[in-house]
Amino acid sequence: MGKYKIIGEPLKNIPWEEKPTDCKEVIWRSNMNPIIKRDHLPTSNSIFNSAVVPFEDGFAGVFRCDDKRREMRIHAGFSKDGVNWDINKEPIKFNCDIEQVKEFEYAYDPRVVWIEDRYYVTWCNGFHGPTIGIAYTYDFKEFHQLENAFLPFNRNGVLFPKKIDGNFAMLSRPSDTGHTPFGDIFYSESNDLEFWGRHRHVMAPRGWWQSTKIGAGPVPIETSEGWLLIYHGVLTSCNGYVYHFGAALLDLEKPWKVIARTEPYLLAPRELYECVGDVPNVVFPCAALTDSETGRIAIYYGGADTVTCLAYTQVDELVEFIKSNSKL
Amino acid sequence: MGKYKIIGEPLKNIPWEEKPTDCKEVIWRSNMNPIIKRDHLPTSNSIFNSAVVPFEDGFAGVFRCDDKRREMRIHAGFSKDGVNWDINKEPIKFNCDIEQVKEFEYAYDPRVVWIEDRYYVTWCNGFHGPTIGIAYTYDFKEFHQLENAFLPFNRNGVLFPKKIDGNFAMLSRPSDTGHTPFGDIFYSESNDLEFWGRHRHVMAPRGWWQSTKIGAGPVPIETSEGWLLIYHGVLTSCNGYVYHFGAALLDLEKPWKVIARTEPYLLAPRELYECVGDVPNVVFPCAALTDSETGRIAIYYGGADTVTCLAYTQVDELVEFIKSNSKL
Amino acid sequence: MGKYKIIGEPLKNIPWEEKPTDCKEVIWRSNMNPIIKRDHLPTSNSIFNSAVVPFEDGFAGVFRCDDKRREMRIHAGFSKDGVNWDINKEPIKFNCDIEQVKEFEYAYDPRVVWIEDRYYVTWCNGFHGPTIGIAYTYDFKEFHQLENAFLPFNRNGVLFPKKIDGNFAMLSRPSDTGHTPFGDIFYSESNDLEFWGRHRHVMAPRGWWQSTKIGAGPVPIETSEGWLLIYHGVLTSCNGYVYHFGAALLDLEKPWKVIARTEPYLLAPRELYECVGDVPNVVFPCAALTDSETGRIAIYYGGADTVTCLAYTQVDELVEFIKSNSKL
Amino acid sequence: MGKYKIIGEPLKNIPWEEKPTDCKEVIWRSNMNPIIKRDHLPTSNSIFNSAVVPFEDGFAGVFRCDDKRREMRIHAGFSKDGVNWDINKEPIKFNCDIEQVKEFEYAYDPRVVWIEDRYYVTWCNGFHGPTIGIAYTYDFKEFHQLENAFLPFNRNGVLFPKKIDGNFAMLSRPSDTGHTPFGDIFYSESNDLEFWGRHRHVMAPRGWWQSTKIGAGPVPIETSEGWLLIYHGVLTSCNGYVYHFGAALLDLEKPWKVIARTEPYLLAPRELYECVGDVPNVVFPCAALTDSETGRIAIYYGGADTVTCLAYTQVDELVEFIKSNSKL
Amino acid sequence: MGKYKIIGEPLKNIPWEEKPTDCKEVIWRSNMNPIIKRDHLPTSNSIFNSAVVPFEDGFAGVFRCDDKRREMRIHAGFSKDGVNWDINKEPIKFNCDIEQVKEFEYAYDPRVVWIEDRYYVTWCNGFHGPTIGIAYTYDFKEFHQLENAFLPFNRNGVLFPKKIDGNFAMLSRPSDTGHTPFGDIFYSESNDLEFWGRHRHVMAPRGWWQSTKIGAGPVPIETSEGWLLIYHGVLTSCNGYVYHFGAALLDLEKPWKVIARTEPYLLAPRELYECVGDVPNVVFPCAALTDSETGRIAIYYGGADTVTCLAYTQVDELVEFIKSNSKL
Amino acid sequence: MGKYKIIGEPLKNIPWEEKPTDCKEVIWRSNMNPIIKRDHLPTSNSIFNSAVVPFEDGFAGVFRCDDKRREMRIHAGFSKDGVNWDINKEPIKFNCDIEQVKEFEYAYDPRVVWIEDRYYVTWCNGFHGPTIGIAYTYDFKEFHQLENAFLPFNRNGVLFPKKIDGNFAMLSRPSDTGHTPFGDIFYSESNDLEFWGRHRHVMAPRGWWQSTKIGAGPVPIETSEGWLLIYHGVLTSCNGYVYHFGAALLDLEKPWKVIARTEPYLLAPRELYECVGDVPNVVFPCAALTDSETGRIAIYYGGADTVTCLAYTQVDELVEFIKSNSKL
Repeated sequence: MGKYKIIGEPLKNIPWEEKPTDCKEVIWRSNMNPIIKRDHLPTSNSIFNSAVVPFEDGFAGVFRCDDKRREMRIHAGFSKDGVNWDINKEPIKFNCDIEQVKEFEYAYDPRVVWIEDRYYVTWCNGFHGPTIGIAYTYDFKEFHQLENAFLPFNRNGVLFPKKIDGNFAMLSRPSDTGHTPFGDIFYSESNDLEFWGRHRHVMAPRGWWQSTKIGAGPVPIETSEGWLLIYHGVLTSCNGYVYHFGAALLDLEKPWKVIARTEPYLLAPRELYECVGDVPNVVFPCAALTDSETGRIAIYYGGADTVTCLAYTQVDELVEFIKSNSKL
Repeated sequence: MGKYKIIGEPLKNIPWEEKPTDCKEVIWRSNMNPIIKRDHLPTSNSIFNSAVVPFEDGFAGVFRCDDKRREMRIHAGFSKDGVNWDINKEPIKFNCDIEQVKEFEYAYDPRVVWIEDRYYVTWCNGFHGPTIGIAYTYDFKEFHQLENAFLPFNRNGVLFPKKIDGNFAMLSRPSDTGHTPFGDIFYSESNDLEFWGRHRHVMAPRGWWQSTKIGAGPVPIETSEGWLLIYHGVLTSCNGYVYHFGAALLDLEKPWKVIARTEPYLLAPRELYECVGDVPNVVFPCAALTDSETGRIAIYYGGADTVTCLAYTQVDELVEFIKSNSKL
Repeated sequence: MGKYKIIGEPLKNIPWEEKPTDCKEVIWRSNMNPIIKRDHLPTSNSIFNSAVVPFEDGFAGVFRCDDKRREMRIHAGFSKDGVNWDINKEPIKFNCDIEQVKEFEYAYDPRVVWIEDRYYVTWCNGFHGPTIGIAYTYDFKEFHQLENAFLPFNRNGVLFPKKIDGNFAMLSRPSDTGHTPFGDIFYSESNDLEFWGRHRHVMAPRGWWQSTKIGAGPVPIETSEGWLLIYHGVLTSCNGYVYHFGAALLDLEKPWKVIARTEPYLLAPRELYECVGDVPNVVFPCAALTDSETGRIAIYYGGADTVTCLAYTQVDELVEFIKSNSKL
Repeated sequence: MGKYKIIGEPLKNIPWEEKPTDCKEVIWRSNMNPIIKRDHLPTSNSIFNSAVVPFEDGFAGVFRCDDKRREMRIHAGFSKDGVNWDINKEPIKFNCDIEQVKEFEYAYDPRVVWIEDRYYVTWCNGFHGPTIGIAYTYDFKEFHQLENAFLPFNRNGVLFPKKIDGNFAMLSRPSDTGHTPFGDIFYSESNDLEFWGRHRHVMAPRGWWQSTKIGAGPVPIETSEGWLLIYHGVLTSCNGYVYHFGAALLDLEKPWKVIARTEPYLLAPRELYECVGDVPNVVFPCAALTDSETGRIAIYYGGADTVTCLAYTQVDELVEFIKSNSKL
Repeated sequence: MGKYKIIGEPLKNIPWEEKPTDCKEVIWRSNMNPIIKRDHLPTSNSIFNSAVVPFEDGFAGVFRCDDKRREMRIHAGFSKDGVNWDINKEPIKFNCDIEQVKEFEYAYDPRVVWIEDRYYVTWCNGFHGPTIGIAYTYDFKEFHQLENAFLPFNRNGVLFPKKIDGNFAMLSRPSDTGHTPFGDIFYSESNDLEFWGRHRHVMAPRGWWQSTKIGAGPVPIETSEGWLLIYHGVLTSCNGYVYHFGAALLDLEKPWKVIARTEPYLLAPRELYECVGDVPNVVFPCAALTDSETGRIAIYYGGADTVTCLAYTQVDELVEFIKSNSKL
Repeated sequence: MGKYKIIGEPLKNIPWEEKPTDCKEVIWRSNMNPIIKRDHLPTSNSIFNSAVVPFEDGFAGVFRCDDKRREMRIHAGFSKDGVNWDINKEPIKFNCDIEQVKEFEYAYDPRVVWIEDRYYVTWCNGFHGPTIGIAYTYDFKEFHQLENAFLPFNRNGVLFPKKIDGNFAMLSRPSDTGHTPFGDIFYSESNDLEFWGRHRHVMAPRGWWQSTKIGAGPVPIETSEGWLLIYHGVLTSCNGYVYHFGAALLDLEKPWKVIARTEPYLLAPRELYECVGDVPNVVFPCAALTDSETGRIAIYYGGADTVTCLAYTQVDELVEFIKSNSKL
């Protein structure tokens, strides 16, 4: 047993590859990357920035599939092993009877989380500008869309896997209409997923790799040391944005309080499938599976806004790294 | 009695000047403009975009007073006649015990409204970017600050003077970090002024004088024809923004439904105190007094982001104008 | 008789005021400025950048009248003395049976010129972006619209008052979609006002007051020394554009050859009606009347994109000034 | 015989490779790509966006060869099979005796077309900004340059292969001075290739992959269903432009009327030679060969603004795809 | 005698007007403003941002005179009373035999200072971009130009009136090529006015009125409390820049150490001659006269980049204000 | 012996690979490229834009190592053969007792040069913006930091390897705060490396590959034909900057006089390690070794702001190329 614990269920069939012996990094890539290629569906331009959860005896997920119109849609998919995926050819059609909300514009960058009795999906939802869409499902077949969480303009809305102080809790990044060149992470609460408030500031961009904007990645992982938040940070080079992974530990009860935050990045674009594609130089973490018994963490991330990739870490190693490389 | 009615209290002492006989406009300016000059307070750089309500046997208000640091603050003030004002030398100090909320950054462009049992103030509140601050007062001496209504970035938050479908209701304009060059009006609800949701889109910028951005002005006025919303619309000339007044009628029960909207503007910068100042070419409506008996409406507006001005109209004339000059 | 001659008709009733004795400028303003105020029409936001020609025993013109939607339209008008104007309340409705051309978007900055047997109007015409509209009239009551001269994006199209080498000839300024921050004057020919070609470059922006962009003003005036072209030149200050007048002499037979061009400006915004208005700091020449007997020239120009003004000069003085202050 | 016909000559020696059995796309790439590498000439930095036609018993072409000054020039070249090319070391020197026109600035993105009795070349020609140059040749040795078609600023000028209503006809994209971030396709006519007019709007950018700007690609192909226009469409990602192929069918007699237009793209940058190079993420179609007997179409396109590539399709398949994936 | 002393010569004939009794400001304007109008010279477009020193029994100065080309030049001038000025019609022609330095591009915003045995002029000098020009004169007739102080891009170079630690000392603001939207004040030394080094950072922009950029104004005034530096600070409104006055006290021996700095501004554009002109909303201090006996200070400043103005203060009052309104 | 001579020491162990027989370029790449990979150090994100000199019986260097915070630092390193390097894990810690100078912000793009009795390092040094840092070392273990050479904003400061006219001499490129989109090379002198002056303009950007900005690369190489300056030139494509190599010959005694300058580039990004990485499409020369006996030149350059590469040329060939491809 490790020094630090993931608070959650065991997941025996979590995808896993051992760390290569010559690897000095705290996170290592799958040898099978990209696990989902851009033309996985006959109609897909690219499949990336996608979310995965344990489901029945395997896994289910919600996948960002830009089609050949380059229209942004999310699709459901299923897998026995978390690596080989059957993705539905048709995008999710949400059940919704709220007049303005049901009019679909676009959907991208989903996250999925189990809270209490069902799965919730959040995503960047077009509503006169990007905002956070919310839906729930029991079976990844029927999805029921609720009110949008916030006014535009917002992106990277991520729910906590359990209520905080009796309320649903969400991280998000207020943005603007286009390719926002700024962005902090905020925290908000709701007792009904319809009305949101108690907005708190969590953290702002900071030096170097995370100097332009930051955004929450996978659903926060509960650990003995706090909420483990893997997030993306963006640097503006003279030839555009570069997206990296970082991580932070947030207070378990007041998650807007940051306990530790990595000064170095955890993963940066290096492989060809991360550096070359529709948006060069992007690694974008969107989901994580965890096994509380072994401390294993499997992270799903988008490469170059084009393909879906997998990387691994272990809770002891990652938490230790965050703590010993933290700057607040 | 007029054709159209203001639904509300009479206000016998409403400031008033008759329309000049040669005036062909639906809104006419006070001869006393600017009624509040930029150096009304010894420490003020400018006093503008301010809100006024009936209070006791006279009037009270909340005033945007930029000081000589050019820092943006709001002050309370009192008047017997609505024209001559005693403005407190010190800015409002809000009572607030919410940790992140009570840290003051800046406050500007207030609105004030009586709802049920007290006065509510909303304003553009600095919270890691502009958002909508909310406070209440009974006496314009003590002000109790509540949670911010939304995540940043937002401006021009205006409460309706009564609940809609049992909820508090607010118009606002999602924005970005700086001098936002875009902006639509949205509608949101809350049953506790803490958690907000049910976001609806109301209207977008449109041709010519309102082509860059629009924002709600005074608290909507309830009339027999719908909510009368006076708003500002902005055009981008090759030498910067020009701010105008327009007006719309919104559905009484579903205020996100626009019944009528003026195609021409109602008032544009023409006087020297509107064209010359800290921000040239601005008229910015922020408050309105109404007398239900006579249908008189007195509009307080900022001139050139420098001084406070007064203009008048009459409900019959204004509603008729909106209806007969509407384009949806 | 002067040293230099205007080649054209006498115009005994040309508007005229003598040069003030203390004036050291080559162009002097009318004491009646602005001769047309912004609210000259009940529906007008502003009347400026307008074109005037002798007509019958008085004058006729085409006027840019932005209405209170801030929509840009052109109206016909008539005057006995060139100073006091009756402007039609309704904008010009062009007869046109060319499918795409007849769909009106907007019209601004007109010029009017008599060529051979009729009056031609050119203006900046909205056609999926600004381009040069052309129409003709015999009576300023009926206007017949022809094909647009060029593909978008173009502005400040000005016809020569007679054919050059057997062809109609036009000056124009290729532009882009918005508040174009660049612009040279080009020359083009057509034998039918429908197909245009033989494009020649005339002159580019140059130092200081004309460093951002330049555009032809009134219809070129034929003189013994060449075509006298009054044009506008724009400087970008740290608070926006400043528009000035300049002048050039063009070769009579090959008008794309510049003989002389003023290094100093001729008129710059100094009066309040030029510095304050919808676009501060603009003087924009659009038309000129000339009397070949006396050499008098009356120039109509827009002030601050808001009002119409009049200025005077004399051909001897102006041509002498251009020649002795020229830099090519 | 197919359902849809190419109206034109047979071309037995058209370059051809059968569609790979696992290919689900309507256009497929050559296995020999890039068929012309960047250093094909000892002095070339890159060879791309080039135009090819049948010539004598083989093929001739005009090639964009940026040299190692990165100066943009066009060269003639010859081939027996359309795949292996002899490109002249020296750029084309145009015969021209029109004073301003003959001054060479730069030349890029050529198209070549046979009309009636000779070959015409059009290209983006530097003339105080980009505009459309025109020349003709009988033998690809001597080229005679005519007047530029339009005033600046224009790009992607493409002649129809026969006269429309008795006139030469051209598609083009009005632009601005630099890396234009907008652009619609327009149609214009001329009876002498010198004077141009009757400008008509054809189509504007639209959702997703073609949301920033569009431009005509190869010379339109006459088919039984209308003019088949392959064009490029550009999306602005947060790391720059991405160029795709699309296609449309235009009315045979009034080619500004769009009959059908692909909602999805036809080809997008996926191969390394399309994603990596002087301008990453560009596929830019510039020429097409057709065989009316088999319906085969061979498309020449630029990869990453660096190399020349070849792709194939078949008229039945392509027209069917356009019709069944059209959105107007 | 006051509490604080100016260390310097008495100046009995310093221009002076008593503070109006109702004035609550620490700096008050002259009733004669603008003391130099824009057309003071027959060739001048504007005269502003000019420098004045005691000279013989009166005053001499160097004046920024933009001519009617809008070319920026500096002229010498003389006055008996410091208010009425004779300005030379011709710009200063510098003696200079350094090859690249003697080529004149443009000159603006001069400062003049007496050091040891002569007058030195510094100004913004065009040298492949703006940098700091230096010259000296004994008589304001002959001016000897030295090497430029720094590489481009720099503005607002101001010499101290005596050597610091044995070296000449200069404040300046590194900038960029255009209307720089940023700028800190730095300090540098030289023992020969040719080679410069020991660069120190003095102060950066800060909240509100001085949030965009700051720049040294008049030559620092030596006082018993430190170097009194009057400077300008710029705020970016949504309609452009607004320039204000502020002041700071710098350490007498290590002038890069700031002792005190005003949080509020001292003077902001309010008068028509400050708000309307070639650049609206500018007050720009450039020179100060001081009388050590009375503590009087007369400040010359530019209004709206168009005219020259005069304002007054008194050392006791000003230093007290700085100290009691300081924020470091 | 060649036609042209390198004036300097022989360097028998200069890294060398013969030119491939099919290579037509004047500069050819090492087959070992990249010779230093991005993860050469366990903590490095990238190692590039680095400087190398002969040292003892091998080589020493200063290396730009961005760490995994993406913080920019410079490290010392040693090598026997110039290809295989031991780079210190810790960045250089400079000895410095100048108060403001010793506060480290960031350091990048170093150059190293031997002058008279020691090695000097120059680099882009953060000091309230980028400027030129200077230090010296005898042993690459202890480094003594001097005053910064100039006020911000400056980059690419390169010392000449011997005094010019008795003074130290430096090339540099004045810049602005961010990813400067402009930049000329200037020359400055100092007799003490503390005070700098006699600024001269050397050369400006020019057509095509060097149209956006240029900057000195390796320390100038003294030859019989003048100072051989290898520099970088930048072109702005529609997807960002492209960096190339060029070269010039400067007058030996007045190095601001350009004798010859390549019109074509010498090397452009073509290999994957130059086109793909943190900043795509960058080759950036930073150092050169020379052997006066053989005329061999080995150039160290950065690839894609990610890795360190090596290329070769020979003085005869290179100087001949510059002379015969020069355009001034």
